[in-house]
Amino acid sequence: MLPSPPRRWRPLPGQLWQRFCRDPHAALMVYPFGLNERTGGPAVAYEQILYETRGAVGLITLNRPEKLNAWTPKMMAEMRDAIAKANEDDSVGAIVVTGAGRAFCAGADISNWKRRIDEGDAGGQRDDAPADAEDWVGFLLRMPKPTIAAINGAAVGVGITQVLPMDIRIASEDSQIGMFFVRMGLVPELASSYLLPQLVGFGRAMEWCLTGRMISAQEALAAGLVSEVVPPERLLERALELGELLAKQPRSAIQLIRTLLHENAVDGDYRRVMEREGKALAFAYTTPEHKEAVNAFMEKRAPDFAAARRQG
Amino acid sequence: MLPSPPRRWRPLPGQLWQRFCRDPHAALMVYPFGLNERTGGPAVAYEQILYETRGAVGLITLNRPEKLNAWTPKMMAEMRDAIAKANEDDSVGAIVVTGAGRAFCAGADISNWKRRIDEGDAGGQRDDAPADAEDWVGFLLRMPKPTIAAINGAAVGVGITQVLPMDIRIASEDSQIGMFFVRMGLVPELASSYLLPQLVGFGRAMEWCLTGRMISAQEALAAGLVSEVVPPERLLERALELGELLAKQPRSAIQLIRTLLHENAVDGDYRRVMEREGKALAFAYTTPEHKEAVNAFMEKRAPDFAAARRQG
Amino acid sequence: MLPSPPRRWRPLPGQLWQRFCRDPHAALMVYPFGLNERTGGPAVAYEQILYETRGAVGLITLNRPEKLNAWTPKMMAEMRDAIAKANEDDSVGAIVVTGAGRAFCAGADISNWKRRIDEGDAGGQRDDAPADAEDWVGFLLRMPKPTIAAINGAAVGVGITQVLPMDIRIASEDSQIGMFFVRMGLVPELASSYLLPQLVGFGRAMEWCLTGRMISAQEALAAGLVSEVVPPERLLERALELGELLAKQPRSAIQLIRTLLHENAVDGDYRRVMEREGKALAFAYTTPEHKEAVNAFMEKRAPDFAAARRQG
Repeated sequence: MLPSPPRRWRPLPGQLWQRFCRDPHAALMVYPFGLNERTGGPAVAYEQILYETRGAVGLITLNRPEKLNAWTPKMMAEMRDAIAKANEDDSVGAIVVTGAGRAFCAGADISNWKRRIDEGDAGGQRDDAPADAEDWVGFLLRMPKPTIAAINGAAVGVGITQVLPMDIRIASEDSQIGMFFVRMGLVPELASSYLLPQLVGFGRAMEWCLTGRMISAQEALAAGLVSEVVPPERLLERALELGELLAKQPRSAIQLIRTLLHENAVDGDYRRVMEREGKALAFAYTTPEHKEAVNAFMEKRAPDFAAARRQG
Repeated sequence: MLPSPPRRWRPLPGQLWQRFCRDPHAALMVYPFGLNERTGGPAVAYEQILYETRGAVGLITLNRPEKLNAWTPKMMAEMRDAIAKANEDDSVGAIVVTGAGRAFCAGADISNWKRRIDEGDAGGQRDDAPADAEDWVGFLLRMPKPTIAAINGAAVGVGITQVLPMDIRIASEDSQIGMFFVRMGLVPELASSYLLPQLVGFGRAMEWCLTGRMISAQEALAAGLVSEVVPPERLLERALELGELLAKQPRSAIQLIRTLLHENAVDGDYRRVMEREGKALAFAYTTPEHKEAVNAFMEKRAPDFAAARRQG
Repeated sequence: MLPSPPRRWRPLPGQLWQRFCRDPHAALMVYPFGLNERTGGPAVAYEQILYETRGAVGLITLNRPEKLNAWTPKMMAEMRDAIAKANEDDSVGAIVVTGAGRAFCAGADISNWKRRIDEGDAGGQRDDAPADAEDWVGFLLRMPKPTIAAINGAAVGVGITQVLPMDIRIASEDSQIGMFFVRMGLVPELASSYLLPQLVGFGRAMEWCLTGRMISAQEALAAGLVSEVVPPERLLERALELGELLAKQPRSAIQLIRTLLHENAVDGDYRRVMEREGKALAFAYTTPEHKEAVNAFMEKRAPDFAAARRQG
């Protein structure tokens, strides 16, 4: 009998997990670099975002600058679609998300809430949170390619929580981050009540969420929320550099590492932690990318992981 | 059948949870702003603390300055009583705790231990830890109003662990913090072996607890143990400002956020995390404070949450 | 019936746990300061490490300087043996690990991987990870005496992950740390996918593991990975000072604190956390070291814990 897949943060859909157990190598070839996630048909013309490729990086730009890129369900659905496309595109190895204009994302569009309240929706139906949005965190973690947020200007409310499940965050010097929910009588969402404490520590998370105050880029850097702060004019360039760096890494290792860290980060049972690590490592040892890395090291040359993947 | 209340860090007593499930709005009106926790009778004259109100803030001062406010079971029982009163007082929105004199709290009164040892109590009975003290963490988390520690001078042993479950900590420039337990042959308590690692990271927590050394205010700030360091003469003023800020926030959101962060901070199952967030959010959407926040935003005016609560 | 020992990070082997439940005091006398862990026979002459005692500190030096102390299964087995010996030696109270030459440890010896790949071992058998290495984390946590890593120069791959379960890490100004696994197409091991996020925060851990970049000593200090950075010529001296400090602390408290923090660090159930703390505290109250600490405090003299242990 096959082992059952890990319960949480499942890296592979059930069928692929079974194929992986029988023949990890073949499954890897199918899954992370192939066509998997259906995105509902042919390419759509986006209304609230832009999507383009820059070298090996898929670049998503939130594009409602006149509204400071205020979040809408449509914007998130379009981001999902673009990220799924980037994951299907073999020439893309990483995804960067940034905002058009002077803000990254000014949170949810409050006019939606106003309408709901005026229409007497006392039941608190979440008309602004369709299934797509509910699954945002799971979607990002299922997608094999890494995501980088390039935070330009304000990122408040869902504007910041939507990038917490991403893999790397950098910010421009003038950016400002706010857990604004309390000011609107609301609470943090998109798993940020778990992710924020694990990113910046419990005390900072609590203080940021209770006061709802603005956090400067430098404070976010010191707290570990972002890993770099750069001048505004350098932000996109630097994010694309990081994207190219990740795109050049062994793709199987990138996917396995992201999954392992999410699975193990708060599991204090070191035996279970090492069991997951051991499975991932046994898998990694069989990949053409690992062999290429070892051979390149011994031959004192740069590795070519793309060629190794093609040759299998 | 009603869903059962969340297992951990339960925010509402069982009966109120059931009422909340049937009619969240009504329960909210009863619980966070009403009279709930019995404190055992009429106001008592405190011996080891002072309690007063300053604007919308309940101010507790540990008041054994000649003993550097050394902790006693009586002091903790009096604090509980004062905090419960502050939670019953609708004019109070947040609680500040500080120390009289040149120290915040110099830890447990060691003469109690000496007496126990001299009396040959080899069984290690914890005569200094009555049920009240045992439940300190649960008590603070059950109380709906937020607590702020204003650490003036030394806070060592239980002097620091007693404020780790509080919501915000600030410190004066000359304050010093010490996990002194190891020096007395003892171990950290009051859930600090969980809270400290989550506040400052596992490595700092271990090093602080094994060496028992003094931590300066600046080091505590960099580690995330306190969120601000101010000159001694400014400490109380700043703590009261923070108290006023929290008191002005929507009270239902403050309570829900505190509960959510404690429930979710180390739960790596993002679906369960988002389920808790979703319930809290659905509740928050129905509160008069959320509606007031949205209306004030659209009308470009400051919100008046107290009025909104009164009007329901 | 005796209570069963705590499930995770078990501090005492089963038999000793039962003895501890019946008579904690006696068990303590047997276990932490006595001869327990069999190391497979008489002292061996080490090939890849040096072991000596300096005062109350056992000093292990990784000793393959011509290979930048590249990790091998043999090196880890020898470290285990030396650490077990130090734990059996009553004159030793703490263990310091450092590297000979200009690096701490340059990771695994890649020639081992090359050989495996060339021999067509497609199954990914971990010939470089014998049972000894698999159990490294559990071994360090079971050993009652604390370990300190003195990181001199580069510590990459397993060179850094092997010291994450240690209790204190300090680094020389010129040291560099790298989670290099991704560069070799591999993933972090030795429970580092749990330990690193808990040491430095989830965001830093992810960014370090995905980029595989070098982390400077100063960045490691700010992140909480190491607790001190000192000039290279001062590193060993400072590590030995810390070792002497820990060796002078009450040994029972040191062991109990290490176990408590590992058990509780990510357990959000504060009742369970406090139950573990309560058991450890009840035990600590009965130790001769606690009594000596209280008496010395009341008599305003320095405590002599070694004498207290001898007198029982």
